[in-house]
Amino acid sequence: MSTYDIILRNAYLMARDQVVDIAIDDGVIAEIDDAVERTADREIQVGGDLVGPGFVDSHMHIDKSFAACGRRHPKGNDSAFDFREIMPREEEYFAEMTVDEITENALKDIEMAVAAGTTYIRTHVAVNHETFGLQNVEAVTRARDVAANLVDIQIVPAARHIPSEESKQILHDAIELASGSESPEPALVGGSDPAGANKDIERTLKAWFDVATKQDVGLDVHIQDGGTLGGYTLDRLHEYTEANGYEDRVTASHCYCLSHLPNHHLDRLIDQFTESDMNIVTCYQSTRPTMPVRKLLESNVTLAHGTDNDRDFVFPHGNADSLEGALIESNKLHGDRTFVEDYRWFDSNEGLDQLWEMITEQGARALGIEDRYGVSEGNPADLVVFDEPSPQWAIIAQATRRFVLKNGAVVAEDGELLPEYSVSE
Amino acid sequence: MSTYDIILRNAYLMARDQVVDIAIDDGVIAEIDDAVERTADREIQVGGDLVGPGFVDSHMHIDKSFAACGRRHPKGNDSAFDFREIMPREEEYFAEMTVDEITENALKDIEMAVAAGTTYIRTHVAVNHETFGLQNVEAVTRARDVAANLVDIQIVPAARHIPSEESKQILHDAIELASGSESPEPALVGGSDPAGANKDIERTLKAWFDVATKQDVGLDVHIQDGGTLGGYTLDRLHEYTEANGYEDRVTASHCYCLSHLPNHHLDRLIDQFTESDMNIVTCYQSTRPTMPVRKLLESNVTLAHGTDNDRDFVFPHGNADSLEGALIESNKLHGDRTFVEDYRWFDSNEGLDQLWEMITEQGARALGIEDRYGVSEGNPADLVVFDEPSPQWAIIAQATRRFVLKNGAVVAEDGELLPEYSVSE
Repeated sequence: MSTYDIILRNAYLMARDQVVDIAIDDGVIAEIDDAVERTADREIQVGGDLVGPGFVDSHMHIDKSFAACGRRHPKGNDSAFDFREIMPREEEYFAEMTVDEITENALKDIEMAVAAGTTYIRTHVAVNHETFGLQNVEAVTRARDVAANLVDIQIVPAARHIPSEESKQILHDAIELASGSESPEPALVGGSDPAGANKDIERTLKAWFDVATKQDVGLDVHIQDGGTLGGYTLDRLHEYTEANGYEDRVTASHCYCLSHLPNHHLDRLIDQFTESDMNIVTCYQSTRPTMPVRKLLESNVTLAHGTDNDRDFVFPHGNADSLEGALIESNKLHGDRTFVEDYRWFDSNEGLDQLWEMITEQGARALGIEDRYGVSEGNPADLVVFDEPSPQWAIIAQATRRFVLKNGAVVAEDGELLPEYSVSE
Repeated sequence: MSTYDIILRNAYLMARDQVVDIAIDDGVIAEIDDAVERTADREIQVGGDLVGPGFVDSHMHIDKSFAACGRRHPKGNDSAFDFREIMPREEEYFAEMTVDEITENALKDIEMAVAAGTTYIRTHVAVNHETFGLQNVEAVTRARDVAANLVDIQIVPAARHIPSEESKQILHDAIELASGSESPEPALVGGSDPAGANKDIERTLKAWFDVATKQDVGLDVHIQDGGTLGGYTLDRLHEYTEANGYEDRVTASHCYCLSHLPNHHLDRLIDQFTESDMNIVTCYQSTRPTMPVRKLLESNVTLAHGTDNDRDFVFPHGNADSLEGALIESNKLHGDRTFVEDYRWFDSNEGLDQLWEMITEQGARALGIEDRYGVSEGNPADLVVFDEPSPQWAIIAQATRRFVLKNGAVVAEDGELLPEYSVSE
């Protein structure tokens, strides 16, 4: 009997609620059994603790990452600022940055994410025909290719100054650039608020779908306008999705409006999400405490999680750590017994399970990788070994990521990337 | 020239915004200078990173800690529950627990807190004349004495079934028990909601002040009723404080109502807090996102922070880590550009500074230890050496606590208590 490459012995699998052995061969999960009989070149004793799939970080901005670093106090975050300042800050920052520098920061961000257990990333990347052009997409595409053995990355170019013709052209070019023949993951059309950012809901949506349909790629767009303005934008996004036959190919990120609207309005939006198979992504940094996470998940809407910004001029925070995100979401969504629904739900074992799903399976659904995701025989061995016995305790104790495996290779141990897998300078 | 015990070389001090040497002798901060000339038995190179005072955890419940542990999923947190269930859960749990078991859990909780950088704790402790009596106070008093070289602990017995005569008697006895002649810190009168818990606002307040004034001790009470009910309770608490000459001796913990009331009502309450020098404590686990943290601090109200429950039947969460608390508070208080004030304030360098204050100086004010607290010559050497250069980066990166010093002794390194300082079994 030949030997396996790696066996994880006595691993708790949440899906089976059982302790099993997991055998890995040739990058793939070869066998899962109560007790795998064959041996392996490397056997890791998990001791009954949790083994989960690599985290799916459904929303990052790796082109901006570490913009706030390099000084004693975070740069660009001296005081609070109006969100409309983000665009000028972005233009100012990237005017000074080279492709090499952006690539290096993106690689550091990838390393941080992988060390924390992430094996799939969707990252938004700014493009701007008026100022910094395609440099960020060049950088992130390069970083993606350099780090291909650490993480799968989907790139979402987001053109500023939509819906002008020039912005549509550069968005088109960005998709081409990021979808080179070697790239394993398709690029998607990104962008921000048709109303609040682009001041023209109809022409923005039309521009996004023009570019997406022309290149036959999906969309993942920021819908951050609040209240009924955001709700109306989601209505129109749904209608464009249906009109273009884009069911299951559109993601709406953030959707703060869902935390502002009354239940009857929410119910109608949820019906639309279901009809057009629209995915929603929320991010711990900016999730509103009244975000109807439980309601969305229990209505079978795909609701994934992203860690969003990492130490940049938008947020000084960020450790690219989905498990930290889940802990913070749990505390944010704790509720208020006085006035808010779902009090304590996200402290409960069921609620913590839902948060765990958002950083794993729900992310896989949002990224369209569910056919190859999860701890099942035949899937790529993208796994995390924790030092806690369940998703609940992993979130609560912010468990050590003892081992992170990508395609069957151990790439990080005890929260640190192995030196031989380092991709940054 | 004689040598010092320890010198921390090249330590960044926030108060001076300067890198200095800190010399420690005989448990005390002996000298702070740009470059201390004398040498020491042990010299620690801080490399320009932050050295801060030990954290003040102004609100814990170490008697309940770890009640949820021991199973694959947190016990007693299977589903969400109504807050009125907490009392029966508490009675059920403690009916099965011995003083030894409670002591052991309290010691583990203390160890977790100290390893995270906490050197001062105020803990609430349940007493109940109908069921588990004084056992928790016995246990926590014992734990306090055993761990006296790790942390200073203030005990706040909170009697259930107030305002009955029996409950007043047991509260009195608990204060006596916790204020033994050897105890360095006075006990305080604790308790919960005069309305929501005890169903009699006037008699509850009267009972609390009767016991407190009789023994000449302060108060720290949970005011968790929301909205105008909580606001009215704070009005009456203020009036009792003034009537009893108890200015600067009363702390109101949680005060969820402050996050529900309109600004004009809040302004009146803040005036009262100022008049009676009342301290407020909020806890990251349950802080409401609209808690007016900035407004309170900028009105010079003492607003401290506690980590509250640790893995018990009230909350499954809890690592007794004030720095984690500050990160979560920052994300909770992030705000909502659509409808809520202070958007992004607690992401900013100034906002993060305020959160840092809450886990340090503000805590010292709430605990009444400000005369001996802080990184100044002559104070006890209760210090934390971080691997990040500022409070902001320490919060964001959840900095490693390289060294924790209590009374000049290194008691923890790299987030782990040193074995020779272990107090649990």
